[in-house]
Amino acid sequence: MAKPFQRVLLVSKYRDPSVRPGLQSLRDFLLAQGLPTFLESECAADIGESLGLPLLSFAEAKADSDLVIALGGDGTLLGTARQTAQSGIPILGINQGRLGFLADLSIDQVSEALPPILEGHYQQDLRSVLLAELWRGQDCAYSGLAINEVLIHKGGGESMIELQVQIDDRFVYTQRADGLIIATPTGSTAYAMSAGGPILTPTLAALLLVPICPHTLTARPLVVADTVKIRARLTARRQPAALSLDSHCSVPLEIGDEIVIRRASCSARFIHPEEENFFQILRGKLHWAESPGED
Amino acid sequence: MAKPFQRVLLVSKYRDPSVRPGLQSLRDFLLAQGLPTFLESECAADIGESLGLPLLSFAEAKADSDLVIALGGDGTLLGTARQTAQSGIPILGINQGRLGFLADLSIDQVSEALPPILEGHYQQDLRSVLLAELWRGQDCAYSGLAINEVLIHKGGGESMIELQVQIDDRFVYTQRADGLIIATPTGSTAYAMSAGGPILTPTLAALLLVPICPHTLTARPLVVADTVKIRARLTARRQPAALSLDSHCSVPLEIGDEIVIRRASCSARFIHPEEENFFQILRGKLHWAESPGED
Amino acid sequence: MAKPFQRVLLVSKYRDPSVRPGLQSLRDFLLAQGLPTFLESECAADIGESLGLPLLSFAEAKADSDLVIALGGDGTLLGTARQTAQSGIPILGINQGRLGFLADLSIDQVSEALPPILEGHYQQDLRSVLLAELWRGQDCAYSGLAINEVLIHKGGGESMIELQVQIDDRFVYTQRADGLIIATPTGSTAYAMSAGGPILTPTLAALLLVPICPHTLTARPLVVADTVKIRARLTARRQPAALSLDSHCSVPLEIGDEIVIRRASCSARFIHPEEENFFQILRGKLHWAESPGED
Amino acid sequence: MAKPFQRVLLVSKYRDPSVRPGLQSLRDFLLAQGLPTFLESECAADIGESLGLPLLSFAEAKADSDLVIALGGDGTLLGTARQTAQSGIPILGINQGRLGFLADLSIDQVSEALPPILEGHYQQDLRSVLLAELWRGQDCAYSGLAINEVLIHKGGGESMIELQVQIDDRFVYTQRADGLIIATPTGSTAYAMSAGGPILTPTLAALLLVPICPHTLTARPLVVADTVKIRARLTARRQPAALSLDSHCSVPLEIGDEIVIRRASCSARFIHPEEENFFQILRGKLHWAESPGED
Repeated sequence: MAKPFQRVLLVSKYRDPSVRPGLQSLRDFLLAQGLPTFLESECAADIGESLGLPLLSFAEAKADSDLVIALGGDGTLLGTARQTAQSGIPILGINQGRLGFLADLSIDQVSEALPPILEGHYQQDLRSVLLAELWRGQDCAYSGLAINEVLIHKGGGESMIELQVQIDDRFVYTQRADGLIIATPTGSTAYAMSAGGPILTPTLAALLLVPICPHTLTARPLVVADTVKIRARLTARRQPAALSLDSHCSVPLEIGDEIVIRRASCSARFIHPEEENFFQILRGKLHWAESPGED
Repeated sequence: MAKPFQRVLLVSKYRDPSVRPGLQSLRDFLLAQGLPTFLESECAADIGESLGLPLLSFAEAKADSDLVIALGGDGTLLGTARQTAQSGIPILGINQGRLGFLADLSIDQVSEALPPILEGHYQQDLRSVLLAELWRGQDCAYSGLAINEVLIHKGGGESMIELQVQIDDRFVYTQRADGLIIATPTGSTAYAMSAGGPILTPTLAALLLVPICPHTLTARPLVVADTVKIRARLTARRQPAALSLDSHCSVPLEIGDEIVIRRASCSARFIHPEEENFFQILRGKLHWAESPGED
Repeated sequence: MAKPFQRVLLVSKYRDPSVRPGLQSLRDFLLAQGLPTFLESECAADIGESLGLPLLSFAEAKADSDLVIALGGDGTLLGTARQTAQSGIPILGINQGRLGFLADLSIDQVSEALPPILEGHYQQDLRSVLLAELWRGQDCAYSGLAINEVLIHKGGGESMIELQVQIDDRFVYTQRADGLIIATPTGSTAYAMSAGGPILTPTLAALLLVPICPHTLTARPLVVADTVKIRARLTARRQPAALSLDSHCSVPLEIGDEIVIRRASCSARFIHPEEENFFQILRGKLHWAESPGED
Repeated sequence: MAKPFQRVLLVSKYRDPSVRPGLQSLRDFLLAQGLPTFLESECAADIGESLGLPLLSFAEAKADSDLVIALGGDGTLLGTARQTAQSGIPILGINQGRLGFLADLSIDQVSEALPPILEGHYQQDLRSVLLAELWRGQDCAYSGLAINEVLIHKGGGESMIELQVQIDDRFVYTQRADGLIIATPTGSTAYAMSAGGPILTPTLAALLLVPICPHTLTARPLVVADTVKIRARLTARRQPAALSLDSHCSVPLEIGDEIVIRRASCSARFIHPEEENFFQILRGKLHWAESPGED
């Protein structure tokens, strides 16, 4: 029977030389399994060598034969997922350090957990992705994907920004705040949670809007269907404002700019050794009690 | 062409004699329209007379020919919706006093707004309903419907209750709190909001769990798909605990009781003169700003 | 030089037979130190024997010669402090189990930590106490002390209560909520925190008002000087309402009842082996990060 | 009897030409009262003329003979108060537009309300002021005053900042967040409230620390005595961080910078026609209910 993955593309935490030993041990393990293994080009540039592996860019990887193994934390997986979402290549996250929400295998578990996965015994976990477009007059000045959240914020400014928000062409509110987070369920346990948002289970067909330090005290997080189109227009600012995706790729905004956010047609595809247990991860990350009388 | 409603059942706010003039004017209006009009039996008992109308119970009303007109606030509509959800009879809410989330027509608008509705020009608004079952050992000791929320709480006790919560047979947490709210999207703007929950748009296919004064400070509201089955087992209490539905029908609980909550197969059917504008209602109720610089 | 404590009164967790071994070991230790040791009368009744010790009631203890050693958790210390606040007898808390906010010595540390304390090497920690009076017409129907908080709540009822609140004869608001917590700084890390209140450092000359599930979404916790007199009048209820002190001593309320709360003239006097480090306790209890990058 | 104020210094909202008619009517009114009236120098530069008044700078004004009348909103009063706090000159705020927390007289009330004030019939309202010093190594690189709050924040950066916080040389926590607000009671109803902080009554001898979007979910607002010294050291950042005072005077921060915040020895001195009614202002601004059943 054909192996499910014909080649593996290794990527690692951006600009972090401490990943090298982990990458080397992953390389050794994969080559010993007889699997063609490549190193992602930018990652090679980051660590300054190829580790003796042929290089491959995300653009050259193929969904039907490749597996991306990402070594790092949730941030590394988010970046990798933004790169692979459109091609549909699956990602296996290996965390170095603390357990993440997405990277649930540690580097120590590789030799035991990886062989069954490479044989095809794994679970897929499809996460919704946001597409954000920045419209300036008639032009789409920028567009990008986000796995966690789209953030419209005051940038380096000191004053609140003011946004007019529409959902499916229905006016919602004019909001003055430090910013507005539009998050996927995946992002609900990231920045949106720090801003006071609820937790959405990963496969819920919903998006989450969370204002940051809203001027209106009755502002509340809002959960909407993931089929909607959200428009946020920057109506006033005296100082910089910015758009960012997954706390990344900051784009300066101008008065009148309109950001249109909707669920992208592609998804992020994560691979897990067994069915993901979201609540178990939550209990671990949030110190929730397991046994009666424990907390 | 056949009129959409063959007869109208009038109901009004429970145990509130001040509804009588409103009921009389509704009666006069409906009879003048030539529509067979009935008074709900309990309502007649409440006000001590039939207003000259034939009486009809909810059990005798029929989905294919009846319209219920409920005079009161959101509480009256909730009670009416619990009575009619299983038969599918549509409800038109007429509020006396402040605008509600559900009752969006005021008594003053009746003569203008009602005729088109009775001709068939209206919008339907289907809201999900919760079914709660109380299991004591092998017995279902109680079951009931809720339009807003199922509440498991400490009743008159002073100590927190402790609940073990499962979602689709997956363990979520053991939570010590004053209570746990399981709300529909409709209920997200009611009690759940006072307890710190997010707003869910009315048609979102989701349920909301909000703890009340949780002992664990990392507890957060949780939004899950409305296809799940939620089980909450009372693991400890030194004092009374209770189950209530829409802040109604309090049922005392015992240690070991399990409450099973899921979306009911029926829905609450509300009728509006035009398409409901949820965000407009929110702006009005929550003093959200409409214009830039307004709030 | 005279020893600072002439006799020790032992008390323990209310109605918990598991404290007996701890009490016995404390008794043995204190007698070995040559210190006259007594068992509190109700405590003796609770465990069904005197442990061979003479009995003493709180009323018979004297501030100038006695030390109360309370074995249990924070709840035990609160109860003991309510009993001793007026006489000014100092309390040393010994926790069985988890670290508390107040009981910072564990039973295992007794033989090492107690001798210096009994020699006079200790720190005093005075905590403010609340006096609550329930006025029904011209009569004070009830009065009592609270170390953590005074709570006015809906009791076993399902509807919110409605309170008119005045501070130093200034009208604050009419609030509909599940309840209102008036807390000391000590109580700010107890129930008030679950209800969303801020943390007050223990010696801050302030009181804290925290509404529970308020109907008005702009309600916020309120911090006021501890010299004020707070009046809360129950203006409406359809169902039971109650007053309770430190989640204890529930007193049923009637419409029109007025609860007057102010700082009591006495204080709770706790003893610690060294200067209390409140922030260290907070970090431990709330899982706050100590080192950069840790949390 | 000597008049309490020998001369009046007029100031107005910064860079807002719409204040001119209000200034003119205030000028006319004051001159008609026979009071020597000056225009603040920067204000004159802002509107491009002196309105026929002699100019005076804040530095030339004197506490024992001057009154500052500030036309604008709360922002204008804050700026004026930072300028006058050290000299102790009293400020009377006249709001143009919406009622503020500080400016409680509207321009329409001037002719009626001002004469008694100028005769000496007024109430003083002393508000605490924060002094923030930025220490870089051994140097104090910046220092300034704040009436509302000192803010340490991520500036235009996308990553959280990390702060080690000490209170009176006691370590509190290492906090990762978008920022940290240290507020006076006056500031508790400003930005700190949007970030989730409690309300402190204006004369409470306390300071308030409120984290903005903290990574640690158990972080809570913290209320401390106003005698403490708060130190916050920037331990990590990959991107810009900044210090700002009353959302003003942004100062870029470097890793290792230490910000020391304590109550200043001076106070802001506001003048009101009658005793300020803080709770009345709160009810107005926050839509709190006055009458039973109203909200």
